[in-house]
Amino acid sequence: MSRGTLTVVGLGPGNTSQRTPAAAQAIAEADVVIGYSSYVDACADLLGAHQTVIRARMTEEAERAEQAVNAAMAEHRVVLVSSGDAGVYGMATLALQKVTELPEDTRPQVKVLPGITAALAASALVGAPLAHDFATLTLSDILNPWHEIERRLRAVAVADLALALYNPRSATRDWQLSRAREVLLEYRPADTPVALVTDAERPDQRIVLTTLSDMDVTLVDMRTIVLVGSSTTVRSGQWLFTPRTTGQAR
Amino acid sequence: MSRGTLTVVGLGPGNTSQRTPAAAQAIAEADVVIGYSSYVDACADLLGAHQTVIRARMTEEAERAEQAVNAAMAEHRVVLVSSGDAGVYGMATLALQKVTELPEDTRPQVKVLPGITAALAASALVGAPLAHDFATLTLSDILNPWHEIERRLRAVAVADLALALYNPRSATRDWQLSRAREVLLEYRPADTPVALVTDAERPDQRIVLTTLSDMDVTLVDMRTIVLVGSSTTVRSGQWLFTPRTTGQAR
Repeated sequence: MSRGTLTVVGLGPGNTSQRTPAAAQAIAEADVVIGYSSYVDACADLLGAHQTVIRARMTEEAERAEQAVNAAMAEHRVVLVSSGDAGVYGMATLALQKVTELPEDTRPQVKVLPGITAALAASALVGAPLAHDFATLTLSDILNPWHEIERRLRAVAVADLALALYNPRSATRDWQLSRAREVLLEYRPADTPVALVTDAERPDQRIVLTTLSDMDVTLVDMRTIVLVGSSTTVRSGQWLFTPRTTGQAR
Repeated sequence: MSRGTLTVVGLGPGNTSQRTPAAAQAIAEADVVIGYSSYVDACADLLGAHQTVIRARMTEEAERAEQAVNAAMAEHRVVLVSSGDAGVYGMATLALQKVTELPEDTRPQVKVLPGITAALAASALVGAPLAHDFATLTLSDILNPWHEIERRLRAVAVADLALALYNPRSATRDWQLSRAREVLLEYRPADTPVALVTDAERPDQRIVLTTLSDMDVTLVDMRTIVLVGSSTTVRSGQWLFTPRTTGQAR
């Protein structure tokens, strides 16, 4: 086994007060720090002149993972940074795919450090809409066929789970969120509470509380998490919360 | 509006290195800290003689929430601590229920601070099994009827989501996990990867990697998170990970 190490780190929503000490320590102790440039900026306070810092472009995720694995094979202590939790639609699975393709005696040691994922950062800002059973789904059909995404939306709606939608809308994916709303409205009432949380815990943070039927999809972009309540989610003033009981128990 | 504040804080999995600085600061600055006793122990390093510390029993969650709200109405700075994320099967929703029952001019200011929830702490320890769409379900039928839990399990299985099971088994709830396995095996192959993660990030941490058919339910207790892969989740040696694509996209 190589003496190099690869630590895949989730930075949380973007403010240093919600970044774990374990993540901060791993970054400060690394020889090499690799990440999409705005994620590297989010940990700039931890970086020093003795470190190699590699700022990657957004679209080059697989190359970024490979670069990190290669640096770790060269016996460096490498940190690959993701926003939120690196294990939720993040870099951890790409890094593990690359590492497990290697012959066992050449693999660097790998560690994954969790972070506050976007759904939970957004949820806390509006109360506790994910306090009972919930699902996270991505609406991006770049890596997934739309019919499969729609099938999952239907099943989650049938299960009456609260829902956090990642990658809900972008300049080139402008119809998916409206279609998702149509699908959900087949199962859930028009007044189902919805929160649109954009740039959670960053200077440009925006929060819009609305309903499934009134949601203005043009307020949503790639930095927005869309939270959709279950049938039991309550809105009271500025708060959304889902009770921890779904009905008569034993 | 009362000048008191109620901050509901998630401590993360239990080690201080995965507790956020925002959570630590809120606890250190509080006049009153309330929580189940083992959660209070988990933040003992932050507590001082100037603070009122109330250690509650596990079963008194609603009373604990009410006590916290009452202390905040008396103009104290109150912190209510939960393990993991207070917004995921935690105290936040109970606190918000109590607060929103009050007349508006008597309500304390409320804030919810997120934490690393148990599912994500467990997931990071075994790789990235929750890297694509996933659901969290509780198997506790104390607050929820079993037929509803089973209906949700079926829908999540149909949706092919990875799954994190909270409250999977206890001394008095000893058949639910076996029944959940039977339900899931109607939809997923016997060799579906499963991880049993108990006491994540604590001194007694135990990790068992197994499969849906081979899972030994007697290794599971209330401090265990059960992670069940989707149809695409891979096991390679000590790692579980779910690729970020489910098939041919556009």
